[in-house]
Amino acid sequence: MTYFQCDYASGAHPKVVESLIVTNEDQTLGYGDDKYCQSAAQKIKEACAQPNAQVHFLIGGTQTNSTVITSILRPHQGVISAHSGHIAVHETGAIEAGGHKVLTLDAIDGKITAEQVKECYMQHKIDPSRGHTVQPGMVYISFPTESGTLYTKEELTRLYEVCKELNLPLFIDGARLGYGLMSQYCDVSLKDIANLCDVFYIGGTKCGSLFGEAVVIVNDALKRDFRYIMKQRGALLAKGRMLGVQFDALFTDELYFKICKDAVKYALMIRKAFEEKGVEVMANSTTNQQFFAISDEWLEILSKKYVFAFFYKLPDGRNFIRICTSWASKEEEVLSLIEDIRSL
Amino acid sequence: MTYFQCDYASGAHPKVVESLIVTNEDQTLGYGDDKYCQSAAQKIKEACAQPNAQVHFLIGGTQTNSTVITSILRPHQGVISAHSGHIAVHETGAIEAGGHKVLTLDAIDGKITAEQVKECYMQHKIDPSRGHTVQPGMVYISFPTESGTLYTKEELTRLYEVCKELNLPLFIDGARLGYGLMSQYCDVSLKDIANLCDVFYIGGTKCGSLFGEAVVIVNDALKRDFRYIMKQRGALLAKGRMLGVQFDALFTDELYFKICKDAVKYALMIRKAFEEKGVEVMANSTTNQQFFAISDEWLEILSKKYVFAFFYKLPDGRNFIRICTSWASKEEEVLSLIEDIRSL
Amino acid sequence: MTYFQCDYASGAHPKVVESLIVTNEDQTLGYGDDKYCQSAAQKIKEACAQPNAQVHFLIGGTQTNSTVITSILRPHQGVISAHSGHIAVHETGAIEAGGHKVLTLDAIDGKITAEQVKECYMQHKIDPSRGHTVQPGMVYISFPTESGTLYTKEELTRLYEVCKELNLPLFIDGARLGYGLMSQYCDVSLKDIANLCDVFYIGGTKCGSLFGEAVVIVNDALKRDFRYIMKQRGALLAKGRMLGVQFDALFTDELYFKICKDAVKYALMIRKAFEEKGVEVMANSTTNQQFFAISDEWLEILSKKYVFAFFYKLPDGRNFIRICTSWASKEEEVLSLIEDIRSL
Amino acid sequence: MTYFQCDYASGAHPKVVESLIVTNEDQTLGYGDDKYCQSAAQKIKEACAQPNAQVHFLIGGTQTNSTVITSILRPHQGVISAHSGHIAVHETGAIEAGGHKVLTLDAIDGKITAEQVKECYMQHKIDPSRGHTVQPGMVYISFPTESGTLYTKEELTRLYEVCKELNLPLFIDGARLGYGLMSQYCDVSLKDIANLCDVFYIGGTKCGSLFGEAVVIVNDALKRDFRYIMKQRGALLAKGRMLGVQFDALFTDELYFKICKDAVKYALMIRKAFEEKGVEVMANSTTNQQFFAISDEWLEILSKKYVFAFFYKLPDGRNFIRICTSWASKEEEVLSLIEDIRSL
Repeated sequence: MTYFQCDYASGAHPKVVESLIVTNEDQTLGYGDDKYCQSAAQKIKEACAQPNAQVHFLIGGTQTNSTVITSILRPHQGVISAHSGHIAVHETGAIEAGGHKVLTLDAIDGKITAEQVKECYMQHKIDPSRGHTVQPGMVYISFPTESGTLYTKEELTRLYEVCKELNLPLFIDGARLGYGLMSQYCDVSLKDIANLCDVFYIGGTKCGSLFGEAVVIVNDALKRDFRYIMKQRGALLAKGRMLGVQFDALFTDELYFKICKDAVKYALMIRKAFEEKGVEVMANSTTNQQFFAISDEWLEILSKKYVFAFFYKLPDGRNFIRICTSWASKEEEVLSLIEDIRSL
Repeated sequence: MTYFQCDYASGAHPKVVESLIVTNEDQTLGYGDDKYCQSAAQKIKEACAQPNAQVHFLIGGTQTNSTVITSILRPHQGVISAHSGHIAVHETGAIEAGGHKVLTLDAIDGKITAEQVKECYMQHKIDPSRGHTVQPGMVYISFPTESGTLYTKEELTRLYEVCKELNLPLFIDGARLGYGLMSQYCDVSLKDIANLCDVFYIGGTKCGSLFGEAVVIVNDALKRDFRYIMKQRGALLAKGRMLGVQFDALFTDELYFKICKDAVKYALMIRKAFEEKGVEVMANSTTNQQFFAISDEWLEILSKKYVFAFFYKLPDGRNFIRICTSWASKEEEVLSLIEDIRSL
Repeated sequence: MTYFQCDYASGAHPKVVESLIVTNEDQTLGYGDDKYCQSAAQKIKEACAQPNAQVHFLIGGTQTNSTVITSILRPHQGVISAHSGHIAVHETGAIEAGGHKVLTLDAIDGKITAEQVKECYMQHKIDPSRGHTVQPGMVYISFPTESGTLYTKEELTRLYEVCKELNLPLFIDGARLGYGLMSQYCDVSLKDIANLCDVFYIGGTKCGSLFGEAVVIVNDALKRDFRYIMKQRGALLAKGRMLGVQFDALFTDELYFKICKDAVKYALMIRKAFEEKGVEVMANSTTNQQFFAISDEWLEILSKKYVFAFFYKLPDGRNFIRICTSWASKEEEVLSLIEDIRSL
Repeated sequence: MTYFQCDYASGAHPKVVESLIVTNEDQTLGYGDDKYCQSAAQKIKEACAQPNAQVHFLIGGTQTNSTVITSILRPHQGVISAHSGHIAVHETGAIEAGGHKVLTLDAIDGKITAEQVKECYMQHKIDPSRGHTVQPGMVYISFPTESGTLYTKEELTRLYEVCKELNLPLFIDGARLGYGLMSQYCDVSLKDIANLCDVFYIGGTKCGSLFGEAVVIVNDALKRDFRYIMKQRGALLAKGRMLGVQFDALFTDELYFKICKDAVKYALMIRKAFEEKGVEVMANSTTNQQFFAISDEWLEILSKKYVFAFFYKLPDGRNFIRICTSWASKEEEVLSLIEDIRSL
């Protein structure tokens, strides 16, 4: 069976694994106070052109989102998110468990606009029952979104301008950042991301490492005592260097970007094959996740050789599925799938 | 100025005040361990025909909602509510501050249906990412709703059947319970309420007392250690007897019901007057809150003598307002308002 | 039976009750936006000589403590308190329920010293595992303490100097503030209290009102959005004016102080009577709570006419009891008790 | 430099690394739904002789402690722990951040007794202010303790009997379980551990793996929905199989136990060398952590070649240090240190 079910089905990229092997017997201090974390942080700051940023290495996405958000908000504040945002739907209420409401906005293609954020903020501001409603305290978006779509540079710039105007820190969830930046449809660079938000993270788990997310705090006001909150949330890895070693490998010779690029190319090839067969594409994704509505019959045929993610039955009986490529996808696997699609 | 702005603009009903005066010099134990609380609890249990219920006296609505909900849910569970529910909108995230997501359902007239609850539950149940989403753990409704509407006995029966089937405790917020039960359009009695849920509260703050809400826990499984959670949430009043004294007065000679009945009658009279003038009624309320869309001009005229609650401007320029009667509304005030409406 | 069990056994002072009666039919806006709250706040600011302070009216002590503390701390911070502090022992973990550790210091007579606070802070500061331990974020004391003792002006000044030096806001729980300030052994004035901390509260529940605590926020940095956090914690009373009316009465013609003064005098008279009989006094209390170790026999005799608070059996069989006077204590009751003590 | 600073300075045991390498290209489902986790869980259940236990793989200790404790307690309950317990001191208030108080007991050698637990429980039970104090809801111990000491089988049996009698689930933190079980002074087996508590975890991070703790839930009542709470707390690793692969290696051919055994032997050899030089041993540790009070001079000499953990200066000027061996310690390193101690 070939897995196109998700982008975390394999282990780590061989170069990452090799780095773990060659450093395995080293002895270092724990909790990220080691040369590998320092080196990785330095490379990330350089790649972002943010020499003064703080870089912290956490383990997974839910943990990273709840740690960052908890560190920013006061108790009466909530985080604005697309209604389809990961924090709103798929984290078992981690943000609420930290005491905060997720203030959801209807999102087209998983994206929220500067105007929506401003409207949400102003509604609260002019609400005669202000004090009785949760105060918007920050904005969360993901890049790419849950639907695989991308904010344009213009959209992101407008969004961040509004956030600054309203004093709402902007946090970008980059669980699949590599797949976003490497899309041919993306007009945003890593430096742009770093310039257009207050804090973001560079996803490792889905982009070549065994696990790990690198939080980059750009805004000075958000840096204070972040490590305490990491520790409290169980996000301070004892052998912290495991994260440094992996990100150091990923940010050496642009490995992170190179391995994501092919994945996106493959995903778009698969999409094209489905489109040519008249299969409905369910989201305007331009990244490594693609969503389709496919009949029982075709799904059954393809499922003999491939594993996809099944989401749910549509009212008309078709199946809403996700096909996901990753840095680990092999060209021959992709070509084989495309051939099988064509012969449906 | 006459206040029709809300149902908590005045002090307490004279008989409640008198009870406070005549008992003022008594000395009793604190925290509700006194004869007045016992007597009030007894009368409430009798009125509900629930001899085995637990009755607890709390101070206000937000506190009561968050205490009850916190006492029931495990950390990964959320509470199902109408999207317009008080806990979802107007409690500054009190439920989230207790760690729980409010799972909102689109509501018509502020009411949710048995079918919606079942669908929400089943969606979670069959979700392939179960474990990654908040688990529905209980259902919250208000009677009357935020829109002043009422569940019929049939609707409530169906809802509770589904709740029992799915093992979801049903909690009824009765902040304005008296105004609901005393509506001529209501086919539900207090005994029905007690029979058709697991826990509910009888609102005092808006129905004749200075403050206070009486929680009635019907389901044995929800009784354990409720007092601890009250204390932790700041809901255990030191001079707890103040609550007992007031509810004892309200549940003597059916005072609670009598004083609410007129308020509802008045509200429906005001509604009729507006309807006759062609003013749009904004919710199917059959209780003491009525909602209207009124022009700037008419609002200005009426605002010279009356205080209403202004919610917001409609896109067409009209004003969305609430007119609220209460146990303290006087017939002459109501008749005066009606006359002024007619002469607009 | 005469109650010396606690200082919340009676209703409110007659003048407070009268104020509630005469304002009962008034109609005002809710949630403290009314003239009575304004007037009371003004009088309190004048009494404190703090024209720029914010004054908020809350309902009870546990609620007030958890609201104030939650509003100040970030998630990884804790509140320093005497191990015997109310927040550490008698609030069912309300502070922890808000997410924060209570960092307890051993206290003599319920008091903590500037030196202890500094030591606690520095230990954390130099801890090689800093980041793994809770960061001290503020200091909580009560005046008088749980043991009925008082900080001297010098002690309080030193404590506050250290707090300012370490950037730790100092919060004074004044649940029994009146009984503290009116002790003949007290060298601190209300103005001193306001000058020597960042936020404090003036207890009403135990000092003449039905309920209510007036929070005075002196430090500008702590004022922002306090009302939101009150609402979220269920501390924003719908008929907020009830609190304003009561505090307005208490702060008219120094009623608050006058009624507390006699209570302290009585308590010290009772103490003297016990001392003369050789009964061991269990704390250096100079306020309205007095603590004694008394034999079974004597306790049984006195308990025929008086209600005391029984704490626990001492190892030697004596009973640790508290005798508490209040603004409601009558001279004849006190004299009767003293006579009965003398004739033991 | 040779590290005796902690037991998480190196990577993973070579066999663990090898397992990660050979499985790296496998594609599996995420979040622990894979054959490696199944296999590891099966081996652990067999090693514990608990066929019906649930086994969950989490990432680190703080995360595991807060997830387990949060899953068990109701909001008003606290967890009993030694005052020196990891959850009480070194987790930045993670338990409090989850809403719960840590109820600490004075501990000798880091251990608490059945009698202490019963006393704490009974004090609460008979407290006249019950309801105002946190209710003991479970008991936490670590094996070995923070001081490196071990509960005897008799002590543990008595403790668990009391826990069962009082209906307090007993949770054993086994972050260093291997070093405990493999001490020559230990009379408890892994099967005993599993029999004498409700839930415990087998530490991987400090005992041979890159990271990972295996929670074993023995008591059926504690199994429900544990995965939800893991996810909410960020403890559900996307590539969950990384944990399965590692624990599978550790529980193949008793690797886990073998590699811990030498570490303990080495630690006791180092202790003996210090004792022979008259250095004061600071805790009765019989496991891989040893604690000493050593002069500035001797510390300076040894620090040229070895890294120890410095805790703090004792009042007499000596340094409180920890020397820690691990599965990665090499015999020649240990012998070298011993020789250097002897020649001091």
